Amino acid sequence: MFDTTTPAAPVVPTRGRLRPLGVSEVRITGGFWSDRQAVNGSATLSHIESRLESEGWLPNFDLAAAGTLPDGRRGREFADSEIYKYLEALAWEIGRTDAAVDSDLEQRFRRVVDRVAAAQEPDGYLNTMFGRDGQGERWSALQWGHELYCLGHLFQAAVARARTRPDADDGLIDIARRAADLVCREFGATGRDAICGHAEVEVGLAELGRALGEQRYIDQAALFVERHGRGSLGEIEFGREYFQDDVAVRDAEALRGHSVRANYLSSAAADVATELSDEPLLHALRSQWGRTVERRTYVTGGQGSHHQDEAFGDDWELPPDRAYSETCAGIGSIMFSWRLLLATGEPQYADLIERTLFNVVATSPGDDGRSFFYANTLHQRTPGVPADPDATSMRASSSLRAPWFEVSCCPPNVARTFASLAAYVATADDDGVQLHQYAPSTVRTTLPDGRVVAFEVSTNYPADGDVRVMISEDAEFTLTLRVPSWAEGAAVRVHSEDDVSESPAPAGAVEVARAFRAGDVVELHLPIVARITSPHPMVDAVRGSVVIERGPEVLALESIDLGADVGDAVVAGDPAERDGQVVLPVRRRSSDDVVEAPLVAYHDWARRGPSTMRVWIPTV
Amino acid sequence: MFDTTTPAAPVVPTRGRLRPLGVSEVRITGGFWSDRQAVNGSATLSHIESRLESEGWLPNFDLAAAGTLPDGRRGREFADSEIYKYLEALAWEIGRTDAAVDSDLEQRFRRVVDRVAAAQEPDGYLNTMFGRDGQGERWSALQWGHELYCLGHLFQAAVARARTRPDADDGLIDIARRAADLVCREFGATGRDAICGHAEVEVGLAELGRALGEQRYIDQAALFVERHGRGSLGEIEFGREYFQDDVAVRDAEALRGHSVRANYLSSAAADVATELSDEPLLHALRSQWGRTVERRTYVTGGQGSHHQDEAFGDDWELPPDRAYSETCAGIGSIMFSWRLLLATGEPQYADLIERTLFNVVATSPGDDGRSFFYANTLHQRTPGVPADPDATSMRASSSLRAPWFEVSCCPPNVARTFASLAAYVATADDDGVQLHQYAPSTVRTTLPDGRVVAFEVSTNYPADGDVRVMISEDAEFTLTLRVPSWAEGAAVRVHSEDDVSESPAPAGAVEVARAFRAGDVVELHLPIVARITSPHPMVDAVRGSVVIERGPEVLALESIDLGADVGDAVVAGDPAERDGQVVLPVRRRSSDDVVEAPLVAYHDWARRGPSTMRVWIPTV
Repeated sequence: MFDTTTPAAPVVPTRGRLRPLGVSEVRITGGFWSDRQAVNGSATLSHIESRLESEGWLPNFDLAAAGTLPDGRRGREFADSEIYKYLEALAWEIGRTDAAVDSDLEQRFRRVVDRVAAAQEPDGYLNTMFGRDGQGERWSALQWGHELYCLGHLFQAAVARARTRPDADDGLIDIARRAADLVCREFGATGRDAICGHAEVEVGLAELGRALGEQRYIDQAALFVERHGRGSLGEIEFGREYFQDDVAVRDAEALRGHSVRANYLSSAAADVATELSDEPLLHALRSQWGRTVERRTYVTGGQGSHHQDEAFGDDWELPPDRAYSETCAGIGSIMFSWRLLLATGEPQYADLIERTLFNVVATSPGDDGRSFFYANTLHQRTPGVPADPDATSMRASSSLRAPWFEVSCCPPNVARTFASLAAYVATADDDGVQLHQYAPSTVRTTLPDGRVVAFEVSTNYPADGDVRVMISEDAEFTLTLRVPSWAEGAAVRVHSEDDVSESPAPAGAVEVARAFRAGDVVELHLPIVARITSPHPMVDAVRGSVVIERGPEVLALESIDLGADVGDAVVAGDPAERDGQVVLPVRRRSSDDVVEAPLVAYHDWARRGPSTMRVWIPTV
Repeated sequence: MFDTTTPAAPVVPTRGRLRPLGVSEVRITGGFWSDRQAVNGSATLSHIESRLESEGWLPNFDLAAAGTLPDGRRGREFADSEIYKYLEALAWEIGRTDAAVDSDLEQRFRRVVDRVAAAQEPDGYLNTMFGRDGQGERWSALQWGHELYCLGHLFQAAVARARTRPDADDGLIDIARRAADLVCREFGATGRDAICGHAEVEVGLAELGRALGEQRYIDQAALFVERHGRGSLGEIEFGREYFQDDVAVRDAEALRGHSVRANYLSSAAADVATELSDEPLLHALRSQWGRTVERRTYVTGGQGSHHQDEAFGDDWELPPDRAYSETCAGIGSIMFSWRLLLATGEPQYADLIERTLFNVVATSPGDDGRSFFYANTLHQRTPGVPADPDATSMRASSSLRAPWFEVSCCPPNVARTFASLAAYVATADDDGVQLHQYAPSTVRTTLPDGRVVAFEVSTNYPADGDVRVMISEDAEFTLTLRVPSWAEGAAVRVHSEDDVSESPAPAGAVEVARAFRAGDVVELHLPIVARITSPHPMVDAVRGSVVIERGPEVLALESIDLGADVGDAVVAGDPAERDGQVVLPVRRRSSDDVVEAPLVAYHDWARRGPSTMRVWIPTV
């Protein structure tokens, strides 16, 4: 049934401009992201499992199997989904590391799957919160119940398993299939005319349909997408836009409401548009993406400026000090952008992915992989208090990373993203391979006509901007390298046995098409220097301020480096680099002294203890 | 038992710098506030009663009396309190209008009191949400249950009744006394060592103690105040500062957490400090007030910049577009400032009261007195949708006034404030009378030594700044007139039979001490012209913007006057007055055309339908 040549990637459309490469075709071999993948594998995954146990969220499945629920159930409505995200992360980690059947990773995966399997009802229903005596009825609480949401994450976990270990006998894929069949029976065209209050089942169903070759799952995803915008979920304090039930997806002008929900739904809509060749829908989504990035996205790539409803604000409403910028919204934005990149091939989508990876996703986990930012403020006014490593934070927003949260969506979301990250590095088309993200890596794939494309990428990116691609096997193909929009003055140089050619590389993408020989080298030079970025004049909250960026990284000023609270800091000159460290002349309003303050990458803030911090620094 | 010479005022300390004058000593006879008092009396009060009936909050008391609760109880935990605030408003309205015993107002008051009385338990307990079979136990949910909070409002209602109709036989005062006695038994020094999650019982107990001469009520209020800051309410998502349980009241540096709670608690602490001559506590409160006004208060006087927890932000965190600035927080701020004014006599407190009255409290009600702003944003980015006059809003924040809210604290809070407003106009001391707020009014009071001070105030304030005080009866006394901090170039002129003298009136207060004759006139001239106010440089959110003010009124730019969305408006010149209308040259970023746009008083915004609006207008 499976197409075993399918890339081991989270998103594998059947059509579109670019074909993804999976985690067996692209390996990240060192550098910035490899370090994070290593910590994710060695620390984060076991941290998550230990918390899923101690919080009772995984034991909920045992209680379900024992028939003793609802007594003893712990966690919120969506607790089940964290187990599925953890399974997804494990599946990608198994694929990424090519873990053996008797490996610890495989054993852990199978043990959790067994516990989930035991909780599934004979008809495929699977949820520890609903459907039993003493619980709410199945599907009776679609507004806040998250039943379909949880199943969407189950489906994504099954997709990860199906694409990395298609021949595994653990049963997860069958669990997902039975649940998906139930969803189609219950919510199909002749079933309940309803949607879930948190989009996710759509993107899960669409991908499960792709992975298992079940068109009706994709059609069911399309039905759910189209059912948004009719107000069927009812009115709530935050308005119907909270769950994108205010306007039909294809009629909306921008992402709005709860920013994770918005991005998950948009991702599903992109999947559906691609699979059903729904060009008007794809056009609408691209337009919404454009307006959202221009007017509703922080300089970090972060999305969502409201704490109250974890939602997008109005156009231009981007306060740095109350940036919610949820880690999961950043991941959702990457999901959406990635689908548009695959559909269109346009580098702007990869640009935003890079911005969001470096400045939202990389910001969340602590160095030890056991603490996380849930929200990612751009301005911290008061130093925080170190989190108790044994505690569970009740607060999504904090000035220091916390080990776990009452609503703990972010840690497993980061884990599954890091474990599958290689799948976002490169794509292929009929003519060659496109490199979207720069990391030390090896790439080897086969083009549709049988040509093998293989190369090795060496780089210190983002510490510097030199990216060296060495061809490993002779082949004629087109190598496409993304040139980020900030990389003014970029150049590409091709070294072959016979000659060296150099040409400018304007922002967008540069193509090198030739009959490559093993040993040929393509060098991309991206000028990485500290630069001053002024805000869009319509953004009221940062008027009269600037941000310092360097390559893909947004920089920040921390009190620990200024030697004083950053509250009254004013830019007093241009940034410079001293021994590889960006420094900025800063005046303090209270003293008028000018000091040269080191800046840190935003993703590195709050790693040295409590601190106040600014991304946007006033100039007046 | 009652001291019938007590002023009919909400706050009557037994010591302090100034003695309040009650609603029988000061009558507002015309102008800005008289108009609002008239609408309050003719429309708002009956609107509130009709909603208390239709929402089921008043019928809850009937169910309690019938013994059928909890079945059929409607409304949130704090619903009882709205009935008490309504009773308080009615009591002040009866006092203000000197309503007869057989008047409609009196009949309505007594009917509601009868229904409340029937619900009180024999031991004094009174709450429709707790204590019965099928309900939570009494005092079992102090964090969110609002039982003591509700009683605090009952006490304030009883105080209003005791001070306006001390000889009434309706029984409200006894109801309050029985409930207060129960609170003292349950929560006294040897009782439960606990506090309520929403401060209010403290301020109610303190004043009931003053009104009934019961020192132990004041001591109980002091106990509750001192019990804050020990974390006894537990941890919540918003932190312990939400209910001011993070730091002892006397150790805090500023108001913080939920802004209504913070102001109610601070008001109670001021009462306690005054009654117990606790100078260190009073000193701490004054210092907290200063920092809060400097760093945590909007230009409108509004407080609370967080929607999520209805809370103060950090110092300097004052985003206009997400200003929560709850109407009730403004009222709470007036309560706190008024107590500090009585204790100290310093005009800065009356300045803030004026700012808050004109720009928060006056902003809330619609012209018909049947719709209200709950939150008071300073920047509306999208025009709203007119509220259904029959609906109940689920949202506290809206761009248009709504008739009622699921949490409907604001309408009755506005009603009780308007009905008692005359009590905030003037005070007395041993030497004379201080006029704090300027409105057409008559004042007549007796000083401690028997001198009668009587005068009439005529003014068009705030349309213009000429205030004319004509003495009605011969008397030697000191007339003190507040000179607002914005009134640069103010002057006072005294006309008597013999001479006319004029002198400058620097910001603060000007005293005119003499043997006045009936017919003497004191004229205060406050220069009221449109002025540009620049923000404090530490407030990030409005850097590069200014606000236009005129006298005590903050002005706003509405799209309906600009003829376009105000989002891209930039100040292009100085404000001017044309035929009594302030106009401002405004450039639009999108067109570069400069137009002269009329400005409206902020309290008048959104009275002509959906509109976008700015208080802070960019200059760059």
